[in-house]
Amino acid sequence: MSQPVDIPKEQWAQVTEKDGVITYKKIPVPTPGHDEVLVNIKYSGVCHTDLHALDNDWPLPRKTPVIGGHEGAGVVVQKGELVTNVDIGDKVGVKWLMSTCFHCTFCQQALESLCPKAQLSGYTTDGTFQQYCVANAAHLARFPPQTDLSAVAPIMCAGLTVYKGLKESDTRPGQYVAIVGAGGGLGTIGIQYAHAMGLNVIAIDGGKEKGEACKKLGAAMYIDFKESKDLVADVKKATHDGLGPQGVVLLAPQEQPFQQATGYVRSHGTVVCIGMPAGAKVSMPVFDTVVRMIKVKGSYVGNREDTAEALDFFLRGKVHAPYKVIGLSQLQSVFDEMRANRVIGRYVMDMSK
Amino acid sequence: MSQPVDIPKEQWAQVTEKDGVITYKKIPVPTPGHDEVLVNIKYSGVCHTDLHALDNDWPLPRKTPVIGGHEGAGVVVQKGELVTNVDIGDKVGVKWLMSTCFHCTFCQQALESLCPKAQLSGYTTDGTFQQYCVANAAHLARFPPQTDLSAVAPIMCAGLTVYKGLKESDTRPGQYVAIVGAGGGLGTIGIQYAHAMGLNVIAIDGGKEKGEACKKLGAAMYIDFKESKDLVADVKKATHDGLGPQGVVLLAPQEQPFQQATGYVRSHGTVVCIGMPAGAKVSMPVFDTVVRMIKVKGSYVGNREDTAEALDFFLRGKVHAPYKVIGLSQLQSVFDEMRANRVIGRYVMDMSK
Amino acid sequence: MSQPVDIPKEQWAQVTEKDGVITYKKIPVPTPGHDEVLVNIKYSGVCHTDLHALDNDWPLPRKTPVIGGHEGAGVVVQKGELVTNVDIGDKVGVKWLMSTCFHCTFCQQALESLCPKAQLSGYTTDGTFQQYCVANAAHLARFPPQTDLSAVAPIMCAGLTVYKGLKESDTRPGQYVAIVGAGGGLGTIGIQYAHAMGLNVIAIDGGKEKGEACKKLGAAMYIDFKESKDLVADVKKATHDGLGPQGVVLLAPQEQPFQQATGYVRSHGTVVCIGMPAGAKVSMPVFDTVVRMIKVKGSYVGNREDTAEALDFFLRGKVHAPYKVIGLSQLQSVFDEMRANRVIGRYVMDMSK
Amino acid sequence: MSQPVDIPKEQWAQVTEKDGVITYKKIPVPTPGHDEVLVNIKYSGVCHTDLHALDNDWPLPRKTPVIGGHEGAGVVVQKGELVTNVDIGDKVGVKWLMSTCFHCTFCQQALESLCPKAQLSGYTTDGTFQQYCVANAAHLARFPPQTDLSAVAPIMCAGLTVYKGLKESDTRPGQYVAIVGAGGGLGTIGIQYAHAMGLNVIAIDGGKEKGEACKKLGAAMYIDFKESKDLVADVKKATHDGLGPQGVVLLAPQEQPFQQATGYVRSHGTVVCIGMPAGAKVSMPVFDTVVRMIKVKGSYVGNREDTAEALDFFLRGKVHAPYKVIGLSQLQSVFDEMRANRVIGRYVMDMSK
Repeated sequence: MSQPVDIPKEQWAQVTEKDGVITYKKIPVPTPGHDEVLVNIKYSGVCHTDLHALDNDWPLPRKTPVIGGHEGAGVVVQKGELVTNVDIGDKVGVKWLMSTCFHCTFCQQALESLCPKAQLSGYTTDGTFQQYCVANAAHLARFPPQTDLSAVAPIMCAGLTVYKGLKESDTRPGQYVAIVGAGGGLGTIGIQYAHAMGLNVIAIDGGKEKGEACKKLGAAMYIDFKESKDLVADVKKATHDGLGPQGVVLLAPQEQPFQQATGYVRSHGTVVCIGMPAGAKVSMPVFDTVVRMIKVKGSYVGNREDTAEALDFFLRGKVHAPYKVIGLSQLQSVFDEMRANRVIGRYVMDMSK
Repeated sequence: MSQPVDIPKEQWAQVTEKDGVITYKKIPVPTPGHDEVLVNIKYSGVCHTDLHALDNDWPLPRKTPVIGGHEGAGVVVQKGELVTNVDIGDKVGVKWLMSTCFHCTFCQQALESLCPKAQLSGYTTDGTFQQYCVANAAHLARFPPQTDLSAVAPIMCAGLTVYKGLKESDTRPGQYVAIVGAGGGLGTIGIQYAHAMGLNVIAIDGGKEKGEACKKLGAAMYIDFKESKDLVADVKKATHDGLGPQGVVLLAPQEQPFQQATGYVRSHGTVVCIGMPAGAKVSMPVFDTVVRMIKVKGSYVGNREDTAEALDFFLRGKVHAPYKVIGLSQLQSVFDEMRANRVIGRYVMDMSK
Repeated sequence: MSQPVDIPKEQWAQVTEKDGVITYKKIPVPTPGHDEVLVNIKYSGVCHTDLHALDNDWPLPRKTPVIGGHEGAGVVVQKGELVTNVDIGDKVGVKWLMSTCFHCTFCQQALESLCPKAQLSGYTTDGTFQQYCVANAAHLARFPPQTDLSAVAPIMCAGLTVYKGLKESDTRPGQYVAIVGAGGGLGTIGIQYAHAMGLNVIAIDGGKEKGEACKKLGAAMYIDFKESKDLVADVKKATHDGLGPQGVVLLAPQEQPFQQATGYVRSHGTVVCIGMPAGAKVSMPVFDTVVRMIKVKGSYVGNREDTAEALDFFLRGKVHAPYKVIGLSQLQSVFDEMRANRVIGRYVMDMSK
Repeated sequence: MSQPVDIPKEQWAQVTEKDGVITYKKIPVPTPGHDEVLVNIKYSGVCHTDLHALDNDWPLPRKTPVIGGHEGAGVVVQKGELVTNVDIGDKVGVKWLMSTCFHCTFCQQALESLCPKAQLSGYTTDGTFQQYCVANAAHLARFPPQTDLSAVAPIMCAGLTVYKGLKESDTRPGQYVAIVGAGGGLGTIGIQYAHAMGLNVIAIDGGKEKGEACKKLGAAMYIDFKESKDLVADVKKATHDGLGPQGVVLLAPQEQPFQQATGYVRSHGTVVCIGMPAGAKVSMPVFDTVVRMIKVKGSYVGNREDTAEALDFFLRGKVHAPYKVIGLSQLQSVFDEMRANRVIGRYVMDMSK
């Protein structure tokens, strides 16, 4: 089955040797360990987390030097002698959760994203901003042969994260979910997942253009926080009985949107926080939380099962992440745009350029 | 079955005509409506909520004048013509949730404590600080004939509330639950419920005496916040794998204990807020909440099923609330002690005195 | 709001005075009790259960004489003095679960279909095969003013039953559910619900025509049991990993389809039995059930919440039950067709004819 | 940490070379692979499943020759170079689930007992009826140093299986669970787990002596099927409201006890089948199953988390399995007693004798 493949000695990569700086240069191709594979990355998405990794501004120790990237899609070209779940030639995805111990209490419960020994792609190990990336075989996403590797790349982080957040919202088909930041990178994918899951999506963001985009993607309603005079009242009114959505997914939990969410979420409903603004805190009023029996939850990345599920929606054509393709060499320009808050949709890098 | 009973025209009651003031006086005995009963209250507990009702300091409109009280235990002496679920002579309990609409989406899901039309005993309707109280038949707790009415009174609010909070903690037998404020009125009952539910209780409070009491009631461990130099570390150490308790029940959610709870709760665990200090807010760090996938929940009073369950533990002898009996006429002294923060255990009033 | 309405003294009805025989005749219009309403039935569906009621062949005592029918849609024309949840002029639905006690342990858990005192429309009380039907107010389905009463009638039983069965299948959006008997009355509605709930439907029935219908309604796949040489293998093959569907909904649990279902359901999956062939038994092999951790569940009708949800899918245009309208006077012909097993889709009677 | 240990070249074992026959003989000590360890088995329980393995009468292919046994407790004496979760000198348990693939959809969900590539100790690989057993490191149970290895052995299968069955019964603390076969090997352990989980145990078995034993172990009630004239009625009567237990655990699902269980289980309750009489079938009446919304489930062995939990109850002293110690050389006598249906409690073999 597996054909011998020519593996070069050198490759192009974007390397961070000093916080905040990336260098595009040639480096050696690494060699996989016993339970690892070498993946020839064809495409890699660029995520806002990569900027946090670059700047090293999270309360989580990062490796230095580091090669960033955790939305990789490629082909297995070499494998360790203990690897049985993939073959050379298989199309696979490399994601944020690069490896876990498989033995701790969290791994035993399939909560491997909580594993204290988790290795994180592009953060505690070298990631997908290189042409050949070593990855733990057990955590690879597995793609069927016909998969479009550029289109699937953003599913590996953006798609998975928002899909997991929707699962954590404890909503059922036919119920309402509000997505806050619906017009952004995660939001536009989230609307599609929620719609495919049978949920009624209340999209919340600012500006007319975003509203039209949200509706096209499947949102039942759009609420423009720039226009609304009473956002809490408007979101509640968007539900047929005026009691508010059963779930809220906050794509960037900040104080004001969080406070509003605890105001408009239906009693007994759930507010899910996704995304991690460095240093942010959110506060909740105790009286209301208790009397209305509200839940607030943090949702991190998904496990392997969530990955397979998020992928399956993509493969069945229910979800597509709008993206622009650029070359690996152009990564700096993406970070520049991110810093200027000008990114719309997702950038996916063609690793051969 | 039901014997005719002599019902007097007048009765003794403690009435609040002006916020903050109670008057012990004779008032007419009320008459039950179609779906209501008249309960001859034999004993009524006094709850901290009664002080909030008296002072009218919650963001929830209260009736004036009002007769407080929502931990009543008595005997049905009269019933409306539509009442079929109780008979005259039955021993029953009157609780905070006096009646609900039974038609709204929450009532339809047995979440009747969230009913927007809920009537609250001793707050929006007259409560149990009177010898004869009108109560909605559907929400009565039903006691077997042999029930000790003074001992069961505190189960109607303190017991039910803490039992519900433990259910909401999403813990399973064999797991750890931390009870914060374990030595107080709710806490001492909570330890017993948790123990009877097969949980390992980590009791948290201040002072040696409370520690001994907590252990006697079934706590596996006691942590004295006055002695601890690093409460978060100490609570984690109290679990066999050092990962912290799966659930935390905060009996009086205030800023510092809440912050600590989000620190020591196990990843993927649940912090339940019970009790409603007027105006309190609690704040949580987003990064940790997300990465550790923590849940924060408010828990209010239980529904009718929870009531039956909380009662069943009591009837099987698993739970007893320590209490002192005084006369209805002495209610003022209880409020005085509450204001001075001197109450230990529960006061139960003998309504005949 | 509520206008006085002229209520006639007499009305047309189809009455069963002797098992197996219906008589179309004039009878007095009944009067609602305290907590009841009088509904002017505009349309009533005819369900296979009505044939069981007519023939009195279930192990459940039936009233005699009885007026059948439990899929009624009409308008409230009179109400008891205690009714607060509907007004005269409101459009409402009358369903199988006519009333329950609201006090037993099942009602307290919103499992009111298990209430031992449940009254069943057209079985233990007179049902909707009459122009004016008395109904318990609490259990009415509530329709918005613009609702098409002929189209909504079959949702009251067929729709609700199959929606509840899908909920009981413990499947999540993106998973597979097999519907056995997918081309029949319940099945064609079930496909639409399942599709709207984000499930991948494997429709199972016999014949090409049914297959085309199933696919048009949203089934991802159709398996023809008349053509299949190995149904168990074929159903498993219909799932992308060959492990079989997570849920199976058996619309008429009989021995062979049941055995097959326990063969092709995914390990850890759920087989839901709906529908009650008089006297049927199904048997399961213990070894496989244990080793594969399969669940088998019975699903009866839904509760009030399920009704509101099933209705909401209909109102949002996700589900339509194909039906033919005939007059109340023609009911005998429907039963004739049922006995001959010739009914396709649903019959809805116009009560004015 | 890990000391070098002298490992002999030869060891004593009980080997099955021909179905139905065991031979006590010397064989070579095996060598562990990369991800395996060599365990010096100190004690091994004997389970009824070992008799099925010996006789090869299950519809599941067994290895030949085979060394049986899957309730082993011992010490790690050698480990493969990839093993990181245990050290030489650690006390560990070897259980039925010897290894799984960790990659399939079931393993990804922590449902590893459903893994199609699972290796079964003493069935598809050599088990614990030998002094030195090779075992997959990931699936080992981990014991603290002070653990009594003879007492813990039966927890590895009997304890785990019945604990898992209780978890699968969907009962909550304070509810009723009926244990059918409560006086047997699994039953006596099951009563203790159920009791420690806060459940009210209705023990069902035959004979006075068993009744006394059951009550001593924590059963709230005992029902003697030899004395009962109407078992269904008697079990229902044993619950305070006469509605039957919420859960039933059937330790050896056979036709009559199963039929009875579907009769006395509370509506909406769960019947769990454990144990696998070769070739057995059980049948259920459709009408009752549907109308009463009963669930029937198969429960197999637990996963690694269940193992850790079952062990924790044991370590906290909540559960002890009564057992008799014999020598490895005496295994034949245990099988003889099993065939004669004379075993009471559990046999644990001292591997040094």
